[in-house]
Amino acid sequence: MCGFVGIVDGKNCSRDVVLSLQALQHRGQDSAGLGTINHGQFPLVKRLGLVHQGFGAAEIEQTPGNICIGHVRYPTVGAGVLRDAQPFFFRQPGVLMAHNGNLTNLREMHDELAENSVHLMSSCDVEPVLCIFSLELMKRRRRDHRLEDAVEAMKTTMEHIQGAYSLVVALVLDGQETLLALRDPQGIRPAVWGQLPDKQGWMVASESVAMDVLSVKRCGDVAPGELMVFRAGSEPIRHQLKTASPSPCIFEYIYFARPDSHMNGKSVYSKRLAMGQALADAWRAKGLEADVVIPIPDTARPAAAAVAERLHLPNREGFIKNRYTGRTFIMPKADQRADALKLKLNPIRSEFAGRRVLVVDDSIVRGATLKHTIEIIRAQGPTQVHLAIYSPPVLHPCYYGIDISTKEELAAPRFLPEGLAATDPGALQQIEQAFASRLGLDSLTYLPLDGLRAAFDGPACAACFDGLYPAPLDEKQRSWIAEDRRKSDQRTLGI
Amino acid sequence: MCGFVGIVDGKNCSRDVVLSLQALQHRGQDSAGLGTINHGQFPLVKRLGLVHQGFGAAEIEQTPGNICIGHVRYPTVGAGVLRDAQPFFFRQPGVLMAHNGNLTNLREMHDELAENSVHLMSSCDVEPVLCIFSLELMKRRRRDHRLEDAVEAMKTTMEHIQGAYSLVVALVLDGQETLLALRDPQGIRPAVWGQLPDKQGWMVASESVAMDVLSVKRCGDVAPGELMVFRAGSEPIRHQLKTASPSPCIFEYIYFARPDSHMNGKSVYSKRLAMGQALADAWRAKGLEADVVIPIPDTARPAAAAVAERLHLPNREGFIKNRYTGRTFIMPKADQRADALKLKLNPIRSEFAGRRVLVVDDSIVRGATLKHTIEIIRAQGPTQVHLAIYSPPVLHPCYYGIDISTKEELAAPRFLPEGLAATDPGALQQIEQAFASRLGLDSLTYLPLDGLRAAFDGPACAACFDGLYPAPLDEKQRSWIAEDRRKSDQRTLGI
Amino acid sequence: MCGFVGIVDGKNCSRDVVLSLQALQHRGQDSAGLGTINHGQFPLVKRLGLVHQGFGAAEIEQTPGNICIGHVRYPTVGAGVLRDAQPFFFRQPGVLMAHNGNLTNLREMHDELAENSVHLMSSCDVEPVLCIFSLELMKRRRRDHRLEDAVEAMKTTMEHIQGAYSLVVALVLDGQETLLALRDPQGIRPAVWGQLPDKQGWMVASESVAMDVLSVKRCGDVAPGELMVFRAGSEPIRHQLKTASPSPCIFEYIYFARPDSHMNGKSVYSKRLAMGQALADAWRAKGLEADVVIPIPDTARPAAAAVAERLHLPNREGFIKNRYTGRTFIMPKADQRADALKLKLNPIRSEFAGRRVLVVDDSIVRGATLKHTIEIIRAQGPTQVHLAIYSPPVLHPCYYGIDISTKEELAAPRFLPEGLAATDPGALQQIEQAFASRLGLDSLTYLPLDGLRAAFDGPACAACFDGLYPAPLDEKQRSWIAEDRRKSDQRTLGI
Amino acid sequence: MCGFVGIVDGKNCSRDVVLSLQALQHRGQDSAGLGTINHGQFPLVKRLGLVHQGFGAAEIEQTPGNICIGHVRYPTVGAGVLRDAQPFFFRQPGVLMAHNGNLTNLREMHDELAENSVHLMSSCDVEPVLCIFSLELMKRRRRDHRLEDAVEAMKTTMEHIQGAYSLVVALVLDGQETLLALRDPQGIRPAVWGQLPDKQGWMVASESVAMDVLSVKRCGDVAPGELMVFRAGSEPIRHQLKTASPSPCIFEYIYFARPDSHMNGKSVYSKRLAMGQALADAWRAKGLEADVVIPIPDTARPAAAAVAERLHLPNREGFIKNRYTGRTFIMPKADQRADALKLKLNPIRSEFAGRRVLVVDDSIVRGATLKHTIEIIRAQGPTQVHLAIYSPPVLHPCYYGIDISTKEELAAPRFLPEGLAATDPGALQQIEQAFASRLGLDSLTYLPLDGLRAAFDGPACAACFDGLYPAPLDEKQRSWIAEDRRKSDQRTLGI
Repeated sequence: MCGFVGIVDGKNCSRDVVLSLQALQHRGQDSAGLGTINHGQFPLVKRLGLVHQGFGAAEIEQTPGNICIGHVRYPTVGAGVLRDAQPFFFRQPGVLMAHNGNLTNLREMHDELAENSVHLMSSCDVEPVLCIFSLELMKRRRRDHRLEDAVEAMKTTMEHIQGAYSLVVALVLDGQETLLALRDPQGIRPAVWGQLPDKQGWMVASESVAMDVLSVKRCGDVAPGELMVFRAGSEPIRHQLKTASPSPCIFEYIYFARPDSHMNGKSVYSKRLAMGQALADAWRAKGLEADVVIPIPDTARPAAAAVAERLHLPNREGFIKNRYTGRTFIMPKADQRADALKLKLNPIRSEFAGRRVLVVDDSIVRGATLKHTIEIIRAQGPTQVHLAIYSPPVLHPCYYGIDISTKEELAAPRFLPEGLAATDPGALQQIEQAFASRLGLDSLTYLPLDGLRAAFDGPACAACFDGLYPAPLDEKQRSWIAEDRRKSDQRTLGI
Repeated sequence: MCGFVGIVDGKNCSRDVVLSLQALQHRGQDSAGLGTINHGQFPLVKRLGLVHQGFGAAEIEQTPGNICIGHVRYPTVGAGVLRDAQPFFFRQPGVLMAHNGNLTNLREMHDELAENSVHLMSSCDVEPVLCIFSLELMKRRRRDHRLEDAVEAMKTTMEHIQGAYSLVVALVLDGQETLLALRDPQGIRPAVWGQLPDKQGWMVASESVAMDVLSVKRCGDVAPGELMVFRAGSEPIRHQLKTASPSPCIFEYIYFARPDSHMNGKSVYSKRLAMGQALADAWRAKGLEADVVIPIPDTARPAAAAVAERLHLPNREGFIKNRYTGRTFIMPKADQRADALKLKLNPIRSEFAGRRVLVVDDSIVRGATLKHTIEIIRAQGPTQVHLAIYSPPVLHPCYYGIDISTKEELAAPRFLPEGLAATDPGALQQIEQAFASRLGLDSLTYLPLDGLRAAFDGPACAACFDGLYPAPLDEKQRSWIAEDRRKSDQRTLGI
Repeated sequence: MCGFVGIVDGKNCSRDVVLSLQALQHRGQDSAGLGTINHGQFPLVKRLGLVHQGFGAAEIEQTPGNICIGHVRYPTVGAGVLRDAQPFFFRQPGVLMAHNGNLTNLREMHDELAENSVHLMSSCDVEPVLCIFSLELMKRRRRDHRLEDAVEAMKTTMEHIQGAYSLVVALVLDGQETLLALRDPQGIRPAVWGQLPDKQGWMVASESVAMDVLSVKRCGDVAPGELMVFRAGSEPIRHQLKTASPSPCIFEYIYFARPDSHMNGKSVYSKRLAMGQALADAWRAKGLEADVVIPIPDTARPAAAAVAERLHLPNREGFIKNRYTGRTFIMPKADQRADALKLKLNPIRSEFAGRRVLVVDDSIVRGATLKHTIEIIRAQGPTQVHLAIYSPPVLHPCYYGIDISTKEELAAPRFLPEGLAATDPGALQQIEQAFASRLGLDSLTYLPLDGLRAAFDGPACAACFDGLYPAPLDEKQRSWIAEDRRKSDQRTLGI
Repeated sequence: MCGFVGIVDGKNCSRDVVLSLQALQHRGQDSAGLGTINHGQFPLVKRLGLVHQGFGAAEIEQTPGNICIGHVRYPTVGAGVLRDAQPFFFRQPGVLMAHNGNLTNLREMHDELAENSVHLMSSCDVEPVLCIFSLELMKRRRRDHRLEDAVEAMKTTMEHIQGAYSLVVALVLDGQETLLALRDPQGIRPAVWGQLPDKQGWMVASESVAMDVLSVKRCGDVAPGELMVFRAGSEPIRHQLKTASPSPCIFEYIYFARPDSHMNGKSVYSKRLAMGQALADAWRAKGLEADVVIPIPDTARPAAAAVAERLHLPNREGFIKNRYTGRTFIMPKADQRADALKLKLNPIRSEFAGRRVLVVDDSIVRGATLKHTIEIIRAQGPTQVHLAIYSPPVLHPCYYGIDISTKEELAAPRFLPEGLAATDPGALQQIEQAFASRLGLDSLTYLPLDGLRAAFDGPACAACFDGLYPAPLDEKQRSWIAEDRRKSDQRTLGI
C-alpha cells in the first residue's frame, strides 16, 4: 500500500502537496517523495521517515513548481531503502511518475526493458512502468510531445502492465504542464480527483482526505481504465483507454482507507456502517446475546457503532489507544508484538468486568495480535467474550497491493476442515467454531461474503475472501510474488 | 503538565521505566529523562523529543539500575531546553528527583536557597525542592542516612514549598535503594502506586496507565500529604506528613489524564461517563432537541457516548482524527492553528448534513480552535449546531500545573456581563447565550459546576471554574506566575 | 573543482571506492556520491557532507557492484543541494557518469537537449553530457550495445561539449561491465589510471593519491582527447578520439592537487620544488636578503623547502595550522575570514621576531586573507617582511573548473597601471611594487610566467595568468559563466 | 589528555570560550562542554563530538555568562559517554570545575566521598575533586563565601588529591564572579593565563594557543602548587598553596602539545628544535650517513628541521598527510591501523628512492603503527632507512594523564636484554640494535635521556623514560590504574 498526490495549478503547489501527503500518511510511513517541474528542470527530493520529519521549509523551497507529485511509501520489504522511494523520473521526454498498487508481471516488464536496454535504479514496480511509458512516448514523437501522443503511449503501456495500479504522472505536453492520472481497467486501487479553491488548479490523490486538508472540491473518481488529463485553467479531459468489469478493492473499505475518504462514489465511513449493520444481523441470526459492544480502535469504531445501534446495545470505548506508537499493520518484528500491543491498547476494565462483551474488529489476517488481545480482554473479567468481524475469513493472498501475506501465513485456512471447500455450505460455521475454540472465545462471528457484498452494494474485488482475482494473474506470477514476499521476513500484518 | 515514573526492584528496571514513560507521553512531549542508582553512581540521561526517539538500547544500557526514575516534560516555555528536563540530581547525599505540578513559591525558594548558597542549573521548579530536601537530609545526619531522616527532611521540606506537586525520589537509605513518593497536602496532582509482577518490586507513576503497560498491579494512590517509601522485597511504608482537605485536580478527569487511568480511587473513564450523563441532563432541561451526538475526538468520546445513551440519540464518529500530527494542547504557534486543525480533524459529512447535531467537547479555554471547528461543522450542512461542554466555563487561571493561561487569555470571562458575578444566578446562562451568539451556534450548553461536582462525587480542586484555590497562594505569587506565563508567547492551549 | 573515482573489478568494489574518495576529499567537501551496477540495477547513493560522515557500512552494503564510480563535489554554489551531487544515471541504456571540470557551453547543451525533449534534475553540468552520450549510444543500436557503439557515441558527444572535463562512465557493453574514462582534447583536468593489486581490476581517478590508498599500481594518464576502456581481467583499450595541443591546468600543480599526486607524467611535488627553485632565482635576482624562509602551510611547504635550499637559508615552520578547521579555499562567508584565519594559522613568534622573513605562498587570487596574514606576521616583530609567490599574478578568471572568480574580484589586476598591458615589460614589477605597498610588505616577488613555464617544463593551460584559453570559449559563454558566478556570493577563494 | 579554558570578563564570554576550545581540539575529540554562571544559575551544555559540530549559535545563546569554563575530552575509555564530559557542577555553593590530568588516588577519594554521603554521576576524575572542594568551602562558611574561604578550601582539597592536575573553577566569591586556576604541586600538567584585549578580562587554558585565537595576551603560567584568582577588572591574585620540586611533563613538549604553545615559560616549538639538535648530535656520534631528512608529519617537523640543519642535509616533506582523517593517537581499534595509516600518510617516492633516508619521529610507545610505516618507506626504494627518535625509549607507563599504556604494551622494554637495567651503560644501544633489527631498519637512534634533559634545560617529569614518578604513587594505585586501563581495550596510542 502506498499513497500519492498530484497537483497542477497556476502557481507553486509543492507546499500543498506536502501538506496533503500528511493526510495519506496512514498509507505508508517508510519514506516520502516530492517531484516537480520547474523551468524545464525536474527537481526531486526523497526522504526516509514520516512526511513531517523529512519535508520542511528547505525541502519545499528546493522543489518549486506549478505541477508537483508526491508519494508516501509502505515498507513492504525490510527497513526502507531510500532508492525505492517514489516518485521516479525519466529524462526523456521528462516524466515524473508515482503510483499505488502492485504489478503482477514485474519480471516480464524487467525482461522487456532489458531487451530495450533500459535499466533501473530500484526494486520499485512503478519504475518499469515509467520507462515503458516514456519509451512509448518517444516512439511517437521525438520532441514537442502532444497530448494525443501521451494518450496513445499510455494505451500501449497498459498492454504491457498487469495487476492493480493507480498512476499519477507529471510532464509537459503541448508546451503545458500536464498532470495525468490512470487507473487499472478493474479500478482495483483508488484514485480520486478534485478542483482547487482557486478554480484554476486540479488535484488527484489516492484518497479524498488528501483533498479535504486543502479545501479542494472533491469531483469524483478516475474511472477504471480511464486516463484523466489535468491542466491549470482548463477542464479535465477524460479518455477511457480500456474497459473491464470494475472491481475496486473491498479491503480498502474494510481496513486500509481512512473512514473519512470517499472512493468509487462511496463513503468508506458509510460502508463501514453498512458492514456493521450486516454483521449485527449475522450475529442476531445466531441467537447470541451480549451486554455491550466494544470496538478495537481505531478502525472498527464506525462498524461497532452500527452494530450497537442495530442490537440496541451500548457502544463503549473499551480500549484506549496510545497515540504515540505506530500502527500494528506497519510495525516491524512480529515477536515484539505482545509488548507493543500492551503499550498500544489499554482496556477500560469497567466496560468488560462482569459483562458479556461483543468485541468488533475489521478482519483477521495472520491472527498474531488477536491472541494477545483476547488475553487482555479475558483479564478484565468479562463473563463472556464474543468476537464479531465485519468481513469474511481471509482465505487467499492479495497480489494487488494489500500486504496480505502468502497463503501459509493466513490464519483462517487452517481452520477449514480438510476436504471442505470454502464455498461449501457450513464451511464458514466450521471455521468460526474451530477458530473460536482455539482463541478461547465464546463465539466468533464473521460477516459472510454475501452479507459483505450486499453491504458494499456494487462490484468489488474480494479476492482475499473468494479467490477470484479480477486482473490477469497466472501461476508463474503468483509464485514469483510469493517468493518475493517470503524474502521479506520483516513484513507484518496486523491481527 | 508532566509525567513521572519510579521503579525499585530486585533487578535492573531502566528498560521498564522507558517503556512505561511512553504510556505517559500525552503528559509531555518536549523532553524525557532517566536517572538510576548504580553501584553508588547516579547515571542520568536526558533527551529532547519523544521517549521512543531519544531512548534506545544504548541509552538504556548506559543507565542500568535496580532503582530508576523517569520523566516526560510538557513544554510550558518555548522550544524546550535540555537543561530544564527532569530528573535532577543532588550529589549530597545522592538524591534523584522528578515531579509533576507547579510550585507557587518558586521565587521564595530561590531566595532561600541563594541564602544557603545553593545554586541551580535550570528554571525547572523541582530543582529547588530537590535542593531543600537534600540539605535537610544532610542537616539531620552527615552520612548513613536512615529512613527516619528522610521522613523528617521531607516533612520540613513541605514547609518550604507551596503549590501542587507529586514527587518521586530515588536515594539510598539504611543502605537500601529507596524510592520515595510524596504528594502535596491537597493531593492536587495525581500519584499512583503498584506492585510489580515479580512481587518484589514497586512502582509509582503519575497515572496508572504507566503501570498497565508493565502488567504492574495497581494498588492505590499516594494519599494527599503522604510520603510513601518503597523498597524491593518489602511492603511499602506510609507516612502521613501533612493533612489538609483533599482537592485533586478535576481538570485531570475532564481533559488531561488518559481515560484508562485511575487516580484518587476513581476511574477517569467512569467520571467522563458521569459528566456526560450530567451534561445530558443539563441539555434536556433546556428542552433542546438533536438528531445525533458527535464527539470531538479523542477526549470527548466517553462523555459523548454517555450523552447519547441518556438522550437515546445515535452517537457517531463525525470527525476523523489524523493520528500523524501532534496534540493541539501541545502544538506551537497559535496562528497556524487553522491549518493544523484541518490536517488533524476531518468531518464525515453524512453525519452532519441535514441534521441537528449535538457536538460534545471537554472544555473551552482560549476558544481559539473552536471558531475554526465550528466553521468546519457549518460547512457540512447541518440544520442546527449545538455544542455541549462537559465542564463549566473556565473563568480563572490555574496556578497548579495545568497550562490554563492568564485570565486575559481565557474566553469565557469575556462573555460575563459587567457587574454580574460568576456565581450569580443567571450568570451561566448569560455566558452561554453571548458565547453561542459569537460562535454562531444554535446553542451552547456548559455542564454547571454543581453538576460537575455531583458527577465527580468527591472533593476536588475546581479553581479554574470557581476561583477557589485550595493551596496557599498570595497575590505576589499570582502576579509572578502570570508574568512568567506572559513571557512565553509560544504556549498554546486547545479549546 | 571536484574529484572522481571509478573501479571495475572481478569482485565487489564499492568499499574501495569509498575509501579512495576520502583521499580526494580535498577536491570537494560539499557532497559525495556512489553508483554501481548490480544485476542489471543501478543503485545510487548520494549524501551531503564529507565521505566519512555520509558513507558507512550501511551505504556500502546497499550499493554493491563489481563496477562502481564515486564523486566528491566542491560547493561552487551556496550551501550544497543534494540533487546536484554526482554521479548521475540515465536509464537507457543504463549509464552512470561523474566528472571533474567545467563545461563552457552548458546553455547550448541545455537548448539542444530541450530540443530532443530530454530533461534534467539538476544544475550539474555533467548531467547534459550524460544525456547526450546516452542518446548517441541509443541512436547507434537499440540494445546489446557494443564497445564500438560507445566509442562512436563518445566521439560524437565530444563534438557537443566544450570546456574542460575528465569523465568517468560505468555501463554494460558487449555484455560486460565496462568503465570508460574520457579526457577533454586539451587534457585540462587530470585523469589517471592504474591496476588493482589483484591484477584483475582497474581504476581511474582524478588524482593518483586515490590509487595509493588502495595500493593500486599507477599506470599513467588518460591522454588528452583519449577514451580509455577498462574491463576486469583484460588489458585496457585506448582510443584517441580527438587531438589538440595538450594544456593541462597548471594551477593543479600550484595549489589544487595534493603534492603526493602524479598527473600528466609529472609529480606535483617535484613541480612545486622546481617552482620554488625558480622563485628563489627570481628573488635572488632582485638582490634582496632574508634570514629565514617560512611557508604558509600546508600548500607552500615543498616550494619553500626548495627556496630555502637554493638560498641557503633555514626553512622553518613559522605557522602552525589547526587541523580541526576547514580549508580556506572551501570555507563560506568572506566576512568571517579574519576570525577563521586566526583559528587556523598560528605563528611561532621566535621564527619571526627580529628577523628578515621571507614568507612563501602559492598564489594570490582575491587577496582577502592575505591582508590578515600579513597583520599577524607584523605582530610577531620581524624586521622585514618579504612575500614570495611561486606563481605569477592571477589576472584572468578561470572558465575550466578552478574557482577563480570573475575578473572584478581578482586582486592583481587592480595594481596594473592603466594603459599598461600585463605583457608589457615592467608590468610585473609595477604590480609587485604597488601591491607590496598596499599590503605593507617590504617586497613582493611573483614567479614570472616564463619562470613558471620553465619550471613546469611542458605545455600547460595558464589562462588565469596569461589569458590564453586553450579550449573554445566565446564571449557569450564567458558572460554566462560570469553571470552564474555572480549569483553565488557565497563562493570563496583563499588568498 | 584533555584541554580546558576559563574566561572571566565584564561581558558575555561563552562564544569566546567555544572559539578557543577549538584551538585545543588536539587535546580531546570525544566530547566538549561549556558551563557558565548567569544570574545565579549555572547553565551547562555538553555534547559528544568535535567542538564545531556540537556548539553552534543555539548552544552559545543558551549558555550566556560573564564567566565561562569549557573543556574538550580525550576518550580514554571506549566510545565516549556524555555523562563523563566536563565541566561538572556542584550546587552548593555553586561551583563549576574542569581539569586536565589524572588523579592517582581516585578510589580513595571515592571512598572518602561515600563516607560523607556524596555521590557521583560519572567516572570522570574531576567530579570527586569538585565535591571535596565544594564540601570544604561549605564547611568554612555556609553562605556569602569569601575568597579566603576558597583559598583554604582549595588548600585542604589538595591534601586529598594525588596525581597530576590542572584545574579551572568558576564560582561566586565576595559577590563577584571568580575564576580559579590550580596546578598540582609538581606542575605536571600545564596551565597558562593571560589578559583579554579589553584589559578587563582574564583567561586560563591548558595551552597558550587557546589564547592566541582570541588575541589574548599571554602572561605566564600558573605556577606548580599555585592557586590563581581572576576577576574582571582587577589584577589576578596568586596563592602558593603547596611547594614541591616542579616537574612539568616532558612528553607534552615531545608530542602532545601544539608546537605553537608556550608552557612553563618554554616554547614547545623551541624545545622541539633543541631536541632535534641533540638528536642530530647523537646520530652524528654514531658515524652514520644519510642523504635526506624526512619527518613523520605533523609532530616531528620542527625537530626534523633542526636535525637537517645540524647535519647539513636537505629536509624534505617525504610524507603527505590527509587532513580529512583523525589523529592516530586518538583513533579507535588498533586492528584497522594499517588501513587507516595508508589513508593518512602517503609517501613522496622521489624523496626516498635511491637515497639513504633519515626518518625523524617523536617517540615510540606501542610501535604498532611503526611497522606499517617502515613497510611503506621500504616500498619507495630507499637504499638505507635510518630512524631517529627525538626522545628516549618509553620504558614505563604514565600515571599522570598521558595515555601511555600499561607496561606490557610498551614496545621498548621487550628489547632490553634480560638482566640488564635500563640505566646500565649499553642498555640504550642494545635496545636500539634489537629493535632496529626487528623493524628491518638500517639503524635506530634514540635521543638519550641526558640529551633530552639537556635540550629541555629545566626540571621535568620524565617518568615514562626513567620510571621516577614525582607525585606520590603507591603500588596499590598503580595496579588500580593499570586495571582500569586494561578494561578499556579500545584505547590506542600511536606508534
